[in-house]
Amino acid sequence: MMGATYKIIELFGTSQTSYEDAIGSAVTEASKTLHDLKWFEVAELRGGIENGKVTEYQAKVKIAFKIKK
Amino acid sequence: MMGATYKIIELFGTSQTSYEDAIGSAVTEASKTLHDLKWFEVAELRGGIENGKVTEYQAKVKIAFKIKK
Amino acid sequence: MMGATYKIIELFGTSQTSYEDAIGSAVTEASKTLHDLKWFEVAELRGGIENGKVTEYQAKVKIAFKIKK
Amino acid sequence: MMGATYKIIELFGTSQTSYEDAIGSAVTEASKTLHDLKWFEVAELRGGIENGKVTEYQAKVKIAFKIKK
Amino acid sequence: MMGATYKIIELFGTSQTSYEDAIGSAVTEASKTLHDLKWFEVAELRGGIENGKVTEYQAKVKIAFKIKK
Amino acid sequence: MMGATYKIIELFGTSQTSYEDAIGSAVTEASKTLHDLKWFEVAELRGGIENGKVTEYQAKVKIAFKIKK
Amino acid sequence: MMGATYKIIELFGTSQTSYEDAIGSAVTEASKTLHDLKWFEVAELRGGIENGKVTEYQAKVKIAFKIKK
Amino acid sequence: MMGATYKIIELFGTSQTSYEDAIGSAVTEASKTLHDLKWFEVAELRGGIENGKVTEYQAKVKIAFKIKK
Amino acid sequence: MMGATYKIIELFGTSQTSYEDAIGSAVTEASKTLHDLKWFEVAELRGGIENGKVTEYQAKVKIAFKIKK
Amino acid sequence: MMGATYKIIELFGTSQTSYEDAIGSAVTEASKTLHDLKWFEVAELRGGIENGKVTEYQAKVKIAFKIKK
Amino acid sequence: MMGATYKIIELFGTSQTSYEDAIGSAVTEASKTLHDLKWFEVAELRGGIENGKVTEYQAKVKIAFKIKK
Amino acid sequence: MMGATYKIIELFGTSQTSYEDAIGSAVTEASKTLHDLKWFEVAELRGGIENGKVTEYQAKVKIAFKIKK
Repeated sequence: MMGATYKIIELFGTSQTSYEDAIGSAVTEASKTLHDLKWFEVAELRGGIENGKVTEYQAKVKIAFKIKK
Repeated sequence: MMGATYKIIELFGTSQTSYEDAIGSAVTEASKTLHDLKWFEVAELRGGIENGKVTEYQAKVKIAFKIKK
Repeated sequence: MMGATYKIIELFGTSQTSYEDAIGSAVTEASKTLHDLKWFEVAELRGGIENGKVTEYQAKVKIAFKIKK
Repeated sequence: MMGATYKIIELFGTSQTSYEDAIGSAVTEASKTLHDLKWFEVAELRGGIENGKVTEYQAKVKIAFKIKK
Repeated sequence: MMGATYKIIELFGTSQTSYEDAIGSAVTEASKTLHDLKWFEVAELRGGIENGKVTEYQAKVKIAFKIKK
Repeated sequence: MMGATYKIIELFGTSQTSYEDAIGSAVTEASKTLHDLKWFEVAELRGGIENGKVTEYQAKVKIAFKIKK
Repeated sequence: MMGATYKIIELFGTSQTSYEDAIGSAVTEASKTLHDLKWFEVAELRGGIENGKVTEYQAKVKIAFKIKK
Repeated sequence: MMGATYKIIELFGTSQTSYEDAIGSAVTEASKTLHDLKWFEVAELRGGIENGKVTEYQAKVKIAFKIKK
Repeated sequence: MMGATYKIIELFGTSQTSYEDAIGSAVTEASKTLHDLKWFEVAELRGGIENGKVTEYQAKVKIAFKIKK
Repeated sequence: MMGATYKIIELFGTSQTSYEDAIGSAVTEASKTLHDLKWFEVAELRGGIENGKVTEYQAKVKIAFKIKK
Repeated sequence: MMGATYKIIELFGTSQTSYEDAIGSAVTEASKTLHDLKWFEVAELRGGIENGKVTEYQAKVKIAFKIKK
Repeated sequence: MMGATYKIIELFGTSQTSYEDAIGSAVTEASKTLHDLKWFEVAELRGGIENGKVTEYQAKVKIAFKIKK
């Protein structure tokens, strides 16, 4: 028997503070237009540097949500 | 000369029976809103366990469809 | 502080000429419906062969665009 | 706040019939000594051949169970 | 002391029914011209879609056979 | 000359706060039954989402401890 | 039902001009002894340098051809 | 037309506090002798354990800086 | 029909002499408490350096043993 | 007997024209301060997009040169 | 201008003594029927265990040889 | 609190005898100009063949050394 299906989208969130915040930024953005977000997977961690200091934490995340039937 | 372009989406299908069925579940779901589905690639195989038995086969699949010009 | 968020989509572009052209084909297609495309990452290079000759260069590319808040 | 912790073990299940059966074989074995098995991930699919026929399907699976506190 | 040596070839088997069948198709094909096939490793699982349904399961498999000295 | 040997186990720690906390949760759990824990490697970062917010940070970690001879 | 089977060989093509040419070199070589070449996958891109200039583009490609039944 | 070139170096930063701090430690170190640092990529996350507690967060990072022409 | 099941553990063996010896060290350690060890897979090769000389070869190995039914 | 040793550095070359040119840009830059460049390996292909068009091809390359004894 | 083309085959060599010997075993076997062998790449290291001791070192190697035009 | 920082360089060592020797060759070379070498990681094993015999073992190694503050 077939069960539920989920769609997985990829976002790239950024934050000046931390990776948790960069991921939160992506999840918040996704939740504006999508419902039933269930889980995320971190695909890549990067960041920006200016004047010798980290100025941006960047997280590429895959976010899954349940498809309504 | 530029040729056809395809878009690739990622779905996570589930089934109580088999991986072929979990993949079929994802493809069926995609076909409800998209036309010209052409191929899929299996990205990950997982599953759920309850009371010491496999209760769900889960397949993360990338599904490609042709973009109409 | 949270910063900008980008969405990443996956396209599969094709060309009879070169990989640069196959990528350009995918980017051109994406730009028809999406704004603020920023960067792309090449995920896979493949191709088609007919009568012993390469007839198609195929590039799977991830394309990122900025999400408007 | 810290949450639940799971332990992940790796088993290599085999079957003469199918990959679903090979996975089931590993899960059944694990459930003999472990409780609260929750999910599994397929890490590798292989198989044995004899006299030109597939005689064994082999699945390397990671199986997770909840640690009782 | 040197021991036995095996050669590994790569085949891409297809089936309308299942991955086990697609793998079997590749192994059967290999056994027509090669002897002493010993094991296989699944390198990739893909498939074809037509009219919104999976029409072909495709398995890229590495097949090993013993080299006669 | 043979030297020390370490065993590596895989845990999946969770936390409502951060990845450092999720890792700490797994290490704390491991230290309840194992001595001489030496290092860990982060194998995967994931998380849970509820009501459009990250509710759990999940870290799959490999933890190594020295085997007493 | 079992379907067509393809064999995949690996070649390393080189060219003084471009990667498309290096791939073409490998495909041309393969087509001298094999028929029904269908597709190729680029596995690795490398190159040679002499006197501070790129003198050779090198592409490791997997080339698939249909096995005649 | 050729554009800017960047050099990428690999550092391994450590911190008793967090991964963000471990990365910051590596970036600060790099900025002592290099100018025009632009971005970093996280290649690996590890850590040290003593007396059953995480005592060090370790981040292997690739740091890119622009080469002055 | 379900077949035999194997458990796979991960050890990190070290030696002052060679990788073969580091692997042997891990296998010897495993054989003290486990029976029916069947095969191993090398997952990672590393080493320690002191005073500009390699002082330790380190091999992370997965070791499989048959589970008694 | 020990043989020659090579150092491998990582550069990120860019070009408005092609990947071959982006690689050439990195190799040319390396050759300004280093001698005996021997080979390169392409580690990543990316690019920049502006106004819906590819404006920059980016190649991360590892470049090897012989160390003079 | 197109240059030389190489074919790459995959062998699995074994030895009771060392990995160097297992590789040598595969190369020796290849050289019996092929000329102009040029280089090899180690793809995987494994081994067999009997009675708690390593009894076989196994190396999966890709071996390249020049195709005569 | 930030801790020590290490720089990681990549060398490609060669030897006519063994991989241990090829690695030693790279470490010895690094130690001529760098102090405080701490550990290495094997990234790739390759080799050269002449007249049907292995003539060179090649090891790509990442070598880490402590940065003096």
